[in-house]
Amino acid sequence: MKKVAILGIGQTVIGEHWDKSLREIGGEAGFTALRDAGMDKVDALFVGNMLSPLIDSQNQLGTFLSDWIGLRHQEAIKVEAACGSGAAAFRAAIMAVSAGQIDSALVIGVEKMTDKSGHDVTAALATAADADYEVEQGVSFVGLNALIMQRYMHEYGWKHADFAPFSINAHSNAMHNPFARLHEKINVDKFEKSAMVASPVNLLDASPIGDGAAAAVIVPAERITSMSGRPRVIIAGSASATDTIAVHSRKDPLFLAAAYESAKRCYELAGIRAEDIDVFELHDAFSIMTALSLEASGFAQRGQGVQLGLENQISHKGRIPICTRGGLKARGHPVGATGMYQIVEIVQQLRGECNETQVDGAKIGMAQNIGGSGATVLTHILKTE
Amino acid sequence: MKKVAILGIGQTVIGEHWDKSLREIGGEAGFTALRDAGMDKVDALFVGNMLSPLIDSQNQLGTFLSDWIGLRHQEAIKVEAACGSGAAAFRAAIMAVSAGQIDSALVIGVEKMTDKSGHDVTAALATAADADYEVEQGVSFVGLNALIMQRYMHEYGWKHADFAPFSINAHSNAMHNPFARLHEKINVDKFEKSAMVASPVNLLDASPIGDGAAAAVIVPAERITSMSGRPRVIIAGSASATDTIAVHSRKDPLFLAAAYESAKRCYELAGIRAEDIDVFELHDAFSIMTALSLEASGFAQRGQGVQLGLENQISHKGRIPICTRGGLKARGHPVGATGMYQIVEIVQQLRGECNETQVDGAKIGMAQNIGGSGATVLTHILKTE
Repeated sequence: MKKVAILGIGQTVIGEHWDKSLREIGGEAGFTALRDAGMDKVDALFVGNMLSPLIDSQNQLGTFLSDWIGLRHQEAIKVEAACGSGAAAFRAAIMAVSAGQIDSALVIGVEKMTDKSGHDVTAALATAADADYEVEQGVSFVGLNALIMQRYMHEYGWKHADFAPFSINAHSNAMHNPFARLHEKINVDKFEKSAMVASPVNLLDASPIGDGAAAAVIVPAERITSMSGRPRVIIAGSASATDTIAVHSRKDPLFLAAAYESAKRCYELAGIRAEDIDVFELHDAFSIMTALSLEASGFAQRGQGVQLGLENQISHKGRIPICTRGGLKARGHPVGATGMYQIVEIVQQLRGECNETQVDGAKIGMAQNIGGSGATVLTHILKTE
Repeated sequence: MKKVAILGIGQTVIGEHWDKSLREIGGEAGFTALRDAGMDKVDALFVGNMLSPLIDSQNQLGTFLSDWIGLRHQEAIKVEAACGSGAAAFRAAIMAVSAGQIDSALVIGVEKMTDKSGHDVTAALATAADADYEVEQGVSFVGLNALIMQRYMHEYGWKHADFAPFSINAHSNAMHNPFARLHEKINVDKFEKSAMVASPVNLLDASPIGDGAAAAVIVPAERITSMSGRPRVIIAGSASATDTIAVHSRKDPLFLAAAYESAKRCYELAGIRAEDIDVFELHDAFSIMTALSLEASGFAQRGQGVQLGLENQISHKGRIPICTRGGLKARGHPVGATGMYQIVEIVQQLRGECNETQVDGAKIGMAQNIGGSGATVLTHILKTE
C-alpha cells in the first residue's frame, strides 16, 4: 500500500452564494487546489456531496464536475455518507491512489443548499436519519441531537451553559478565517439567550448551513520529496466505521461507537496515541457532538468532554486545540463539503498558515467527519515529514 | 496492486416489490452473496444506488445497509454515478481491496423505485442529465435518447425495425432467467407496433424500471486458490471514464467516447482485445445504446452496431453474445443496481450456470455500465483461471 501525500488545497468562502451555481462553487475549490498543487490535470476526481439530488436536482456529480473542471474523459465518481460525504470521498481517493492504478486524484467536497426554503433543507437533511423508524415518527435531525443532549445533561449533571465554551471558541477562531461563514464574537450571555431551536439545542449550539466547497489534490508521497520550502503533508491514517442509523437502536446513545472505532483504527495505522495529536478538527454540528467526539476519540472520559471547554483546553494554545478555523459552528457546515474543509484546515495548520489561531509547532493533526447522528464516522490523521 | 477475485454473488428477482422495504431488498442480495461466499462478515460494504434520497427519502445507504446486514461498526459507503452507480461501487471496492487496507468487501447495487408515481420517477431519473442545460429545457431522459436515436437513423440510414433484434434477443434470453422482470417473447411485429414513448423510442426500445438488488463478495485472489470445484473468477480489468454530462456539449453525440476510453483501458489492463471477449453484458437502457456500446467497445464499425443484431451475432451462440440473461431491456433496470446485476451475470456465465443461454466455454466476460447518456462509463473484464 503506497503512502499518500496532499499536494494542494483549495476552498471557497462559505455563504449564501445565490449568484453562483453548484458547478461554479465546486470548480472554484477544485481549481484552487490544482493551482496550489501546481498541476492542471489529475487521473481521477472524487466528489463528496449529500444533497444535490434533493436540492439542486442534479445527480452524477463526479462527472458533472470533471466536465466543468476540464477533466473530461478522466475517471470521476461521487461518494455519499450524509454529512460525512466529504471525508468519505477523501478516503475513497486515498484507497485508489494507494492501490496504484491511478497516480493523482482531486477530491472536492461541495454543497449548495441555501437556494431553497428552510423547510426543504430540513427535510433534505432528515434523509441522514432513518426514514422508516425515525423520520416517519416526525423527528428532525436537530430533534435527534436535542434528545441526545437532553439525556447527556441529565445523565452527567451538566447545565446548558457548560457547553458555551465550545461555541465561544469556534466563533472566536472564525474571526480570523476569511473563508468562515460567521464573523461574530459571542459570550456566555449571548449563548444562553440565543433563540431556542429544539430544547435544549439553541441557535448557538447549532452550526449554520451554507454553500461552499473545499478540495485537495493527493498523490503518492514518493512523488514529492521536496516541496519548495513547504513541509510535506502525508496521510498517516485513514479509517472509517459505522453504527446504527437510528439512534434508538444503540445500546448507548451517549457514546459515539463509530467515532471510537474509527479513531482507534486511525491511531493504530499512524502508530500514535490521542496525546500525540496537536490539533483536532472535529464535527461540531451541534455542541453536544463536540463533547461526544472528544470523549470517543480519547481526549476525555465518558461524560467529561464538556470539562475540556470549561478548562479552556480547546483553544489553539490549549492541550487539545479544536475548531481552530471556526469549526462547523462558525466556519459553517455545507454538509457534503465539511469533511474536506476539515482536511484543508489541518493542512493549513501543518503548513503553519493559520496566523492568529496557529497551533505552535503543529506536526500531527486529526480530522473527524460524521454522517448522521454518529452513524458513519471517518477519521484521518495527517502529519508533516 | 493486489489481484482481486469474486467469491460470492447474489441477486433478487426484479419486480414491483411493494411488500419489501429498501433494506429488505438490499439485504436479500447481500445475504445471498455472503452465503455463496461462505462468509458471514466482511471488512467493508460498498453500496451503489442512485435514487434513494429522491424516492425513498433515505441517504447514507452504506451505513443503512451495513446495520441491517449485521456489519455494524464495519466501514460502509455509498457511491453514486447515476445508472452507473452499481459498477462505480464495485470499482471503489476493488480499489480498496487491492490497496490492501481491507481484506474483503461486499458490494450491493440496490434500487427501490416503483412505490412512487411515474412522474416522480421520471423527474428523479432526469437528475442523471444536466439540470441547468438539459432538464431546464424540458427534455426528459428518454427524450435525450430519442434525439440520439433519431440522429443515428438519419446519419446511417437505418430504419426503426433494424433495432428489433436487440430487444428480441434480450426478451428471448430473459425467458430463462428466473430473476428477470419480463418473461414475454416478442417478435418484429410486436416491436414495431409497440406504444410510442418519445419518437422514435417506443416501449420495446426502452428498458423497464424495477425494484431489485444484486451483490458480490470480493477478496484478494490469493485467498482462494481452490474453490470446491468452481472456477476462480478474477477481475482482470476495471476502468472508468467520463464524457460531458450534457449530450449537446459533445463533439459527436453518436459516439460514446467514455465507453471507448473505459473499454480501451480495460482491454489494456487485461492484456486482451475485443475479439477475446466471450460474453458482453452491455447497458441496453435503450436499443440505441446497444448499437453505440457495441461500436465504442470495438465490436462494430461506427454506425454498424445494428448490423450485429440483424446478422444474429448477439445470441448466446453468436460471435459476441450480449444480454444473455435479458439485459436491461428484459431482465430489468433498477438503475443503481444494474451494474451489479451485470457483474453477477458474467460470473454466472463464467461458472457455467446459465443453462439455456450458457455461452459455451465462456472464459472471459465483460460488463459495461453507463451513467447518464454516456456520461460515466465503467467497464469490467472478468475471467476464469
